Amino acid sequence: MERTLTKDCKKKIGKKVLVKGWMYQLRELGKINFIILWDRSGYIQIVVQDKKEIAKLKNLHIGTVLGVTGEVKKSAQTELGVEIANSQLEVLSPVHEAPPIEYNKESIKANQNTILNYRPLSIRNEKIRSVFRVQATIMEAFRDSLRSQEFVEFRCPVLMGSPSEGGADVFEVKYFDRSAYLAQSPQLYKQIMLGAYERVFTLLPVFRAEKHHTSRHLTEITHMDAEMAFVEDMDDVFVVVEQVVRDIFGAIEKRNSKDLKRWNVSLPKLPKGRFPRIKIREVLEIVEKRTGKSAKGKKLDLEPEDEREIGKWAMEEHDTDFLWVTNFFKDKNFYTWNNPDDPSESQSYDLICRGIEWLSGTIRIEKYEKLIDNIKKQKLNADQFEGYLQAFKYGMPPEAGFSFGLERITQKIFDFDNIRSATLFPRDVERLTP
Amino acid sequence: MERTLTKDCKKKIGKKVLVKGWMYQLRELGKINFIILWDRSGYIQIVVQDKKEIAKLKNLHIGTVLGVTGEVKKSAQTELGVEIANSQLEVLSPVHEAPPIEYNKESIKANQNTILNYRPLSIRNEKIRSVFRVQATIMEAFRDSLRSQEFVEFRCPVLMGSPSEGGADVFEVKYFDRSAYLAQSPQLYKQIMLGAYERVFTLLPVFRAEKHHTSRHLTEITHMDAEMAFVEDMDDVFVVVEQVVRDIFGAIEKRNSKDLKRWNVSLPKLPKGRFPRIKIREVLEIVEKRTGKSAKGKKLDLEPEDEREIGKWAMEEHDTDFLWVTNFFKDKNFYTWNNPDDPSESQSYDLICRGIEWLSGTIRIEKYEKLIDNIKKQKLNADQFEGYLQAFKYGMPPEAGFSFGLERITQKIFDFDNIRSATLFPRDVERLTP
Repeated sequence: MERTLTKDCKKKIGKKVLVKGWMYQLRELGKINFIILWDRSGYIQIVVQDKKEIAKLKNLHIGTVLGVTGEVKKSAQTELGVEIANSQLEVLSPVHEAPPIEYNKESIKANQNTILNYRPLSIRNEKIRSVFRVQATIMEAFRDSLRSQEFVEFRCPVLMGSPSEGGADVFEVKYFDRSAYLAQSPQLYKQIMLGAYERVFTLLPVFRAEKHHTSRHLTEITHMDAEMAFVEDMDDVFVVVEQVVRDIFGAIEKRNSKDLKRWNVSLPKLPKGRFPRIKIREVLEIVEKRTGKSAKGKKLDLEPEDEREIGKWAMEEHDTDFLWVTNFFKDKNFYTWNNPDDPSESQSYDLICRGIEWLSGTIRIEKYEKLIDNIKKQKLNADQFEGYLQAFKYGMPPEAGFSFGLERITQKIFDFDNIRSATLFPRDVERLTP
Repeated sequence: MERTLTKDCKKKIGKKVLVKGWMYQLRELGKINFIILWDRSGYIQIVVQDKKEIAKLKNLHIGTVLGVTGEVKKSAQTELGVEIANSQLEVLSPVHEAPPIEYNKESIKANQNTILNYRPLSIRNEKIRSVFRVQATIMEAFRDSLRSQEFVEFRCPVLMGSPSEGGADVFEVKYFDRSAYLAQSPQLYKQIMLGAYERVFTLLPVFRAEKHHTSRHLTEITHMDAEMAFVEDMDDVFVVVEQVVRDIFGAIEKRNSKDLKRWNVSLPKLPKGRFPRIKIREVLEIVEKRTGKSAKGKKLDLEPEDEREIGKWAMEEHDTDFLWVTNFFKDKNFYTWNNPDDPSESQSYDLICRGIEWLSGTIRIEKYEKLIDNIKKQKLNADQFEGYLQAFKYGMPPEAGFSFGLERITQKIFDFDNIRSATLFPRDVERLTP
């Protein structure tokens, strides 16, 4: 008999079916017993009344993989609207003891470390499953949106001959009789790729050897990066990014509304039209006015409390969770243009959402001589950037780019305190398993 | 004036436009001169006749980034059907010397090492660009096809606490005061993820510390991996894979027919219906008959020459480039079922295309006790597999999976001798740049 997915049972009322899945709940009431069975399409209630079948229930633990044949009947009380009656059970994979965490409860009652130690089981919890279904949608919608805006995907390498952006916090790999380094960002490669496709994107793991024990730091995260040429000013980038954000939210609303509901969260509020934008100088003034704390002596940079305050301001003044903050303090990296009108400012931008940075980017220097100059000024080794500089020496248009952190966005949509809750298999100073 | 993409000039005949792009060709004929300008949408011919403009041509090298204003005119001789006349040139980014490789010729006349050393320029060659446009389509179509078959994408970690599959050929990372290892495959993680989603896939870089100097070996490649539960037999997997292959080819035909034409290659021939399948034992018999070489003493495994011969046979007998070869010699890994009817065989399969392996996979052991047993027999350390075993201890259905190599498929579609030609930034024993 061919397997029927639980969601398709609705179309087979009165018919005999075979469903297969994991036992998610078991309610034993003596003569009448209920199993909730889970498969990839959802849940179904199995009614077990036959004596011979009831006897089998004794040895069943949560997670047991079952094949159940029975008759589909209408059932007004169940979410699906149907249940399986006159059930016969076959154990396809037995479970010999109760799982160490009760993942089949609405929420797992355990601290985060335990939840991560038991990740192969905690991921079976429906709320946790929801998080990574949304994460899958974010990845897909990011790529689809950029493709529709004529960006080409490319595979950026992870193994580097030298540290990608200078040297601090880079992981070293024993590479035969020398060293290699793990990519900290796809920055230089996406710029190289511009010379071939004008608009490119990549989604890749990046690595930071930062010895921080915080709720924000992981050693391996997922970057969603893009780079575009023939940029006249920041607004050309903003148009692209705003479309990406709208497309990601649109996809989540379409596919994951139940997943959001399960956590009782809603997506950040988009503005009706374009996203508001404001220079960091003005942000500091607004925050000073609102909080009464002097901004004197502050660099052109945002402290977390400034981000939170300006986030509130955006909602009050512009009725949206989003705003662009631009023109940060002149950048320390060698590839960003400063503001020609005020060289204390860089041509940089952050997208703030609900009081935290979601994305950052800059207008890049496309002039070969200027890059060489900056590399010398910063006492970097120009040889390390040979391939990169090649692309600029032989013709590169004005260009800019941006970078989202996949885990960060996922975290913020679900309003998690810790980025680990938005990461399937987080890696940090202590954790490399599972 | 707003930029017009070259492909959109067709809609603006008689109008004044601004196009921007790279100078790809320059033909100086004295009074009348032609530039071929490239942007992300294609090429356009620019006619330069004005004396003041002609004077600017002197200093222009290939790759110079130009903004050109002029009038769109019909032009029967050009591929686009229009050209830009009465052109005025503005240099947006200058190039001060001719590029070291002539990437603007139909094919680059240089050996592969030179082409890779100059990758930021060689990728500007239209034929090479084509290769990686096709590669982008393969990635996208692989994901789209699996999503349409109800697979969920997940992000598999690259940093591992212990070697993923045993220990040989693994790269070691200095990880604070201990060691981490780079993923050799997403195998164990995709199996873990099955417990949550039933069908999963991931596309990720994997790493092999093999000291080979061959046309086939790279240290970093891209795996396209999937895993599925409730598999009754191999055929359940084959149905999914055959759809993936058809969807990838369908997408390439739709979007990249010009890219294939440029290389004068065509996609491998698909069968009308299901892909033919054959056991390795029969393959060896057929090859023996066809070549006259005795298969005696051969293990149940395919040598490259066997693959080529059976590839020819598939075309002759089944009119297709594809065939499944199954039941290889009992597997050395601990997670594959052997054939219950003949324990010298494993439940394994390769998809052969044009005489080379495109994909491999196996039916996995879902029984916890059997896995423990195999891990002991192979003298592996069970502690290393703790998280993995957790997933099986608490209920895992019969399952199977498969793995494509992105670079391998790209290579074989274009019939390249060397996998490096199908890799943007190849990494091998010698090469870690650019």
